Amino acid sequence: MAARKSTSKSTQGSAEDRLIARHFRPLATHPGALGLGDDAAVVAVPTGHELVLTSDGVIAGVHFFPDDPPDTVAKKALRINLSDLAAKGAQPLGFLLSVALTREVTDDWLASFAAGMRADAKKFGCPLLGGDTDRTPGPVSVSIAAFGTLPRGSMVRRAGARAGDRVVVTGTIGDAALGVILRRDPGAAERWRLDDRTREHLLRRYRVPEPRNAIAAALRRYASGGMDVSDGLVGDLAKTCRAAQVDADVEIARVPLSRAARAALAAEPALIETILTGGDDFEVLASVSPRKVDALRKAAKAAGVSITEIGEFAKGRGVARFTDAQGRLLEFARPSYSHF
Amino acid sequence: MAARKSTSKSTQGSAEDRLIARHFRPLATHPGALGLGDDAAVVAVPTGHELVLTSDGVIAGVHFFPDDPPDTVAKKALRINLSDLAAKGAQPLGFLLSVALTREVTDDWLASFAAGMRADAKKFGCPLLGGDTDRTPGPVSVSIAAFGTLPRGSMVRRAGARAGDRVVVTGTIGDAALGVILRRDPGAAERWRLDDRTREHLLRRYRVPEPRNAIAAALRRYASGGMDVSDGLVGDLAKTCRAAQVDADVEIARVPLSRAARAALAAEPALIETILTGGDDFEVLASVSPRKVDALRKAAKAAGVSITEIGEFAKGRGVARFTDAQGRLLEFARPSYSHF
Repeated sequence: MAARKSTSKSTQGSAEDRLIARHFRPLATHPGALGLGDDAAVVAVPTGHELVLTSDGVIAGVHFFPDDPPDTVAKKALRINLSDLAAKGAQPLGFLLSVALTREVTDDWLASFAAGMRADAKKFGCPLLGGDTDRTPGPVSVSIAAFGTLPRGSMVRRAGARAGDRVVVTGTIGDAALGVILRRDPGAAERWRLDDRTREHLLRRYRVPEPRNAIAAALRRYASGGMDVSDGLVGDLAKTCRAAQVDADVEIARVPLSRAARAALAAEPALIETILTGGDDFEVLASVSPRKVDALRKAAKAAGVSITEIGEFAKGRGVARFTDAQGRLLEFARPSYSHF
Repeated sequence: MAARKSTSKSTQGSAEDRLIARHFRPLATHPGALGLGDDAAVVAVPTGHELVLTSDGVIAGVHFFPDDPPDTVAKKALRINLSDLAAKGAQPLGFLLSVALTREVTDDWLASFAAGMRADAKKFGCPLLGGDTDRTPGPVSVSIAAFGTLPRGSMVRRAGARAGDRVVVTGTIGDAALGVILRRDPGAAERWRLDDRTREHLLRRYRVPEPRNAIAAALRRYASGGMDVSDGLVGDLAKTCRAAQVDADVEIARVPLSRAARAALAAEPALIETILTGGDDFEVLASVSPRKVDALRKAAKAAGVSITEIGEFAKGRGVARFTDAQGRLLEFARPSYSHF
């Protein structure tokens, strides 16, 4: 872990070295992390295996609320990367962490942040390998590069979807996007007739995603293609279709919704667009041959993950279509959310 | 490359997808980058080899000046990572790029940034494998995770230094730290009696480091230990000493200085502290057995890199000592620079 640019008179290392030693070294359980005491980590990839690499980050005020609990900020930052590894069928190996901290960040904030990250590093078997820390005039940002391994040639690709495959998703869709609205406008809970439990469910799904690493091996075995849903189901299915040069037809009535999302949607039907395009789901969107759907479902169930068929891939030129119960084609103002 | 949170009505992908396609896809020459069209990259590590992983970043106003030419910002961000790979003896494999852009960043800025990165990706054989782009309220930040490979067990470690080894550095020390002063206070050029060429040399050394990847294989072969000098020679030698639990004695008169740094130092002797502790050198600091110094020097020379013996490692408990021409021990107010 590189403490570039650090200041201290101590012969025991800089303030940054101590920060790293106190908060982050406990996460560096992989022997190749060298206790964060070198410029780089070194890891072996098992014979016959390949390395899968991904990176993603979160920025205060953009991907999380500055007053979110720091342990959840850490978990979200790591889990959005774990979700990519899961969708690709890779087994987590470890991660590099870059954090840019403002002067306002307290030691308590950091301790909670590190505790959250440590818990997830352990839970998902994905230890810290190294990284760097910096001061920034703001906002706080956390960038992670995560690594996984899988047998050579077995990575689940976006482009793997084939005409005739089923469109399959894990878990439920739209919760996190509704959670963002609730976070900004707590009054929405009443409008949507949510009880404490359903409200908390949506907020939690935004703060801490549930990456589906438990079914990575099953995806390698049974899925022809896949990606994780991060920019919204509509936009991400469109990406899959473009990558694989196939069309897809989805009936929105088949899209799995949580009890909380169903309640919100019943109260405010226009939320269907938020649910389908809001993003931050971090569920797996996979293409699965009809012959293999039952086997995938069974394996997923054993791992505690629900999967739902929501449509079919068909020959085409890369277009994803969503139809309502009356068979009408839905048009979305913003098929996937955000800032560019 | 994940375009998480992007907005567009186009069926050809979001504005962010187009930004990535236009500016960054040309850098993704590794087949495992999948043209930046998937959630992750996939690479093989050659049999009998290990993977070396490092990450480091630059933030506008912290590690570079906001009006620095964007191609040099890109080069600096990549090269500070390449420097870690070089010091560890690793051959570059590729990198992941996370950029957070403000709304003020123009397409021209991005084009120049990408051109600089593309030139260096080619020059150092280190292609883009993936990454992510985000909007930030500011400042612009660039975080890179870089990967290299080397024969199993051959990574050059900080802790490898042994009593009796020579303290060796590549290139010249202190240029970048003087360059920062010049950048902030152009009048210093006159005080230091620099001509255009020496002034430009110092500024360039700050803007665009020269990582020593050309001698990575020679370091594996001849160095017992090593790291790159990023936080300043004094602080980084202290880190080596602590990691290896040896002492080191350096005569500052032996520290290699550029003509520009010598001119500045002659005009303002107090600059010795800046030179030795300012950092951003991105030279290699290695420990080398006396029997192997000549072989390393020869190999380095063939690669166009100068190396200089500046002292010796000795039995001890992890202390680095710097002495002047009169044998007096120097004390530094800040053995390594900066912000924590």
